Amino acid sequence: MKDNKQNTAVLLMHCPDQPGIIAVITEFINANGGNILYLDQYVDKINGIFYMRVEWDLDNFGIPSEKISDYFETLYANRYGMNFKISFTKKRQRMAIFVSKMSHCLYDILARYVAGEWDVEIPLIISNHPDMKVVAEQFNIPYEIIPVNKDNKVEMEAIEFDLLDKYNIDFIVLARYMQVLSEDFIKRYPNRIINIHHSFLPAFVGAKPYHAAYDRGVKLIGATSHYVTTELDAGPIIEQDIVRITHKDTIDDLVKKGRDLEKIVLSRAVEKHIQRKILTYRNKTVVFS
Amino acid sequence: MKDNKQNTAVLLMHCPDQPGIIAVITEFINANGGNILYLDQYVDKINGIFYMRVEWDLDNFGIPSEKISDYFETLYANRYGMNFKISFTKKRQRMAIFVSKMSHCLYDILARYVAGEWDVEIPLIISNHPDMKVVAEQFNIPYEIIPVNKDNKVEMEAIEFDLLDKYNIDFIVLARYMQVLSEDFIKRYPNRIINIHHSFLPAFVGAKPYHAAYDRGVKLIGATSHYVTTELDAGPIIEQDIVRITHKDTIDDLVKKGRDLEKIVLSRAVEKHIQRKILTYRNKTVVFS
Amino acid sequence: MKDNKQNTAVLLMHCPDQPGIIAVITEFINANGGNILYLDQYVDKINGIFYMRVEWDLDNFGIPSEKISDYFETLYANRYGMNFKISFTKKRQRMAIFVSKMSHCLYDILARYVAGEWDVEIPLIISNHPDMKVVAEQFNIPYEIIPVNKDNKVEMEAIEFDLLDKYNIDFIVLARYMQVLSEDFIKRYPNRIINIHHSFLPAFVGAKPYHAAYDRGVKLIGATSHYVTTELDAGPIIEQDIVRITHKDTIDDLVKKGRDLEKIVLSRAVEKHIQRKILTYRNKTVVFS
Amino acid sequence: MKDNKQNTAVLLMHCPDQPGIIAVITEFINANGGNILYLDQYVDKINGIFYMRVEWDLDNFGIPSEKISDYFETLYANRYGMNFKISFTKKRQRMAIFVSKMSHCLYDILARYVAGEWDVEIPLIISNHPDMKVVAEQFNIPYEIIPVNKDNKVEMEAIEFDLLDKYNIDFIVLARYMQVLSEDFIKRYPNRIINIHHSFLPAFVGAKPYHAAYDRGVKLIGATSHYVTTELDAGPIIEQDIVRITHKDTIDDLVKKGRDLEKIVLSRAVEKHIQRKILTYRNKTVVFS
Repeated sequence: MKDNKQNTAVLLMHCPDQPGIIAVITEFINANGGNILYLDQYVDKINGIFYMRVEWDLDNFGIPSEKISDYFETLYANRYGMNFKISFTKKRQRMAIFVSKMSHCLYDILARYVAGEWDVEIPLIISNHPDMKVVAEQFNIPYEIIPVNKDNKVEMEAIEFDLLDKYNIDFIVLARYMQVLSEDFIKRYPNRIINIHHSFLPAFVGAKPYHAAYDRGVKLIGATSHYVTTELDAGPIIEQDIVRITHKDTIDDLVKKGRDLEKIVLSRAVEKHIQRKILTYRNKTVVFS
Repeated sequence: MKDNKQNTAVLLMHCPDQPGIIAVITEFINANGGNILYLDQYVDKINGIFYMRVEWDLDNFGIPSEKISDYFETLYANRYGMNFKISFTKKRQRMAIFVSKMSHCLYDILARYVAGEWDVEIPLIISNHPDMKVVAEQFNIPYEIIPVNKDNKVEMEAIEFDLLDKYNIDFIVLARYMQVLSEDFIKRYPNRIINIHHSFLPAFVGAKPYHAAYDRGVKLIGATSHYVTTELDAGPIIEQDIVRITHKDTIDDLVKKGRDLEKIVLSRAVEKHIQRKILTYRNKTVVFS
Repeated sequence: MKDNKQNTAVLLMHCPDQPGIIAVITEFINANGGNILYLDQYVDKINGIFYMRVEWDLDNFGIPSEKISDYFETLYANRYGMNFKISFTKKRQRMAIFVSKMSHCLYDILARYVAGEWDVEIPLIISNHPDMKVVAEQFNIPYEIIPVNKDNKVEMEAIEFDLLDKYNIDFIVLARYMQVLSEDFIKRYPNRIINIHHSFLPAFVGAKPYHAAYDRGVKLIGATSHYVTTELDAGPIIEQDIVRITHKDTIDDLVKKGRDLEKIVLSRAVEKHIQRKILTYRNKTVVFS
Repeated sequence: MKDNKQNTAVLLMHCPDQPGIIAVITEFINANGGNILYLDQYVDKINGIFYMRVEWDLDNFGIPSEKISDYFETLYANRYGMNFKISFTKKRQRMAIFVSKMSHCLYDILARYVAGEWDVEIPLIISNHPDMKVVAEQFNIPYEIIPVNKDNKVEMEAIEFDLLDKYNIDFIVLARYMQVLSEDFIKRYPNRIINIHHSFLPAFVGAKPYHAAYDRGVKLIGATSHYVTTELDAGPIIEQDIVRITHKDTIDDLVKKGRDLEKIVLSRAVEKHIQRKILTYRNKTVVFS
């Protein structure tokens, strides 16, 4: 809801590592009147891959926004074998929240949203339960109840696809959403569905990780935000954190301590996604600072 | 090497929870002239088990040390179904270190030892390699090379048992020791062999956890100290900690960052063991503060 | 808003350390039919002070609730020089929030409140600004604007005292409230006003700690929750935490990272207070687990 | 002691921010046959300063090492107002340790040294006490006792200067060295003396920070490594970390927990210095990853 006065372009790219790429790209931006506001790059020496994020001011940039991608592809991307995406901060991204019955992640996201912390629109909340409708109403956001389950998944997801299209949703945040998405769903939004799992993955994949953590007697519990892929809890990890527990903590204590972790770890990942600071490659993420 | 001037008894116990146990035990100590220096207790409400650690000054205690366990068993342990152990801080415990080729945990332990941080004796280091002999010599500690491998384990461990007996070893610390102990070995030292595993267990059990962590793209790496049981990396966890990593960290970086974790996490566990502050039950630990 | 079905008594006490106190108190509870649900104690050996928190089930307790304090004082407190307080979980405490213009701590508290995480009532929000009225309305909580400043403090606080009395407020949470309370105000609520300061105290006392942290070039920023005393930012510390920063972080980044710290650190302190797990002594806190 | 096979140049620089600097410098390296192994840069937008670290392989670099600085200054540094330093990893830096009576930091450094973790030489240990001579002897490093105090500082430091010159010392690590260096000493080694202070600065400047932390009742203790400047404990901070404590911890416990912090925080700073990854500006550090 922040009034985004910036007018910048963000280039996210990776390509086989080779000398001179930074020079070529910064020269392209500078020569056309762009003022670089952010540049971070990383070279994966083991796999020989170069990753970069550059953001520049468009106010005096000589190439019209709608032609930048085209020019960049012709002039550089083809030549260097780049995989790239250029986006524009003038266009605010649109995010849908999927939620089931728990409110802590939902409130954390909506509180940041109305405080203007994030440059994003949240026009839609979808749930398989009516419980969180009261929260959506507090924030005046449409809340659609789609009672999806194992047996009606195809039909229910069809309704969800219509809603996501109708609201022009760019990416989806699963804020403790307790239904598994179909492969079809996941493939429509590659690297655009962010989930929070309540363990330090890869430990305790699947259901009831706090129970499993309690049974194993660990001294730390964690939370992991990741992009959803078709393999359960196995997508590219964006962010993780932990909190210390002791033998005194019951499963209820783990659930309570975990809630604070979950909401913070999920919101950190959502923020990085909104800022277009995440690149994925080979089921891993590059998260720029 | 600290000159331990304290003359105290430590009672570690657990039993079915029932009203009045604290009162009974503190009354036993007070009535016999013992001054309680430490008392911590914990009730596992789910399983209905009461755990306690009490330490008291023996200077004016009316019951001779050698009879305390006997009296306690007759008067209380049988009545309340207690599982208990009374030990005496006057008797310094004797610890053996097993090490392979890496020095970081070994140095961390020996530096604490000669600085007098721990009330323990370290009369013996055993290794399957000659590499760390130079370190043992720096600290004037006997270093026995037992080239154990999968094929000669029975004979080599027999030699180790003799050494452990000869040096009156109470407990063993595996300071990045890269051989799996036999079931026979483990059963001789129940809850008396402490290992350090270089991951946040139960993630990345087994060999090469840093490689596995790198491949999975986690954002945290960890280390876990635990008592050794016959199932690999599955014994009761004593202590865990993590450190944050990023996409920039190579496997070598993980190994480097992990070393600092490993040595600190192992030493914290060893210290708690020396202080007799660990109780185990159902493959989990109660670690008193 | 949780329906609190428990009917327990909580004893918080401290007194000069001496043998047998635990035995005496647990015997008192057991003998009168109370079932102890929680017992934690701590001895400050340096100052010779014994601290304890005991909670027991009142369902079969032989002494009527309204007489317990009286009996306990006569039978034990006088004899052992105890400073004690007995409270009853049946009576839900009533908390007022003071807030200025920032919403992050307020939302964090209210989200926990409506989710039933805390056994507390929040019947009143007071602010020196109208900005947060919209949040109070979302949660249907009375919001009183008292435009206090340095010049009108006496009159404005008189209005606040009336409100606090009218709503039977037990304790106050300053959720980033930007006015200094008068000495008179603070003395009315000893150890019952909880503040959040956005630094790891005692570093960066006073205004604009993030600016000061930025100027000093620290690599960590922190937040501290504490009871308010008449000396600014110098009251007993309840909880602290930190987050890592780098040279890349601007003051705005510190403010943003700090918000997540502030809300979590404040809520942890509020929860401990609600659970009656904090004892203060000599400007320090004992926080039971 | 690692055999450093790399032959690289490291450029550390800062200058007023302006478009095209990265392009210019990477072009300079690429055009002369250098293969860039590391590039990280940072722009301080508030003060308008550009910082960069570049490291490149010298094997096929066309300009002889001894002429690179000269060329770079003429061609670029003057033009862009750069403050820069080019160093060569072929030349192993030489580090002196100053220590008083405590061994934990000393052992931590020497253990890393003999394990080959660091590309550094440690030819000299200086102390104002004889206590640590035994440790120096374990590692076969010359140990010079210079009994400096407030009254003989000028003469004693003169001896130290001779020793530092004789051993060609590049930088100094104060590993819990309990004497204040003179202004003259500090000015000879600007940004080349690394100290460890046992608090999270700027809290608890000066003597006995653990006592001060205990008295204030903090819930965290910290350690800070920084470059020494003429104002006590006020130099540019390189690294900080904390550990959680509770009311149960005595001053002795703080000292014990603090030791692990101190050694890790100091060693992290020393490693960054050895890797030439620290730039200082306006009493703050830029620490590259």
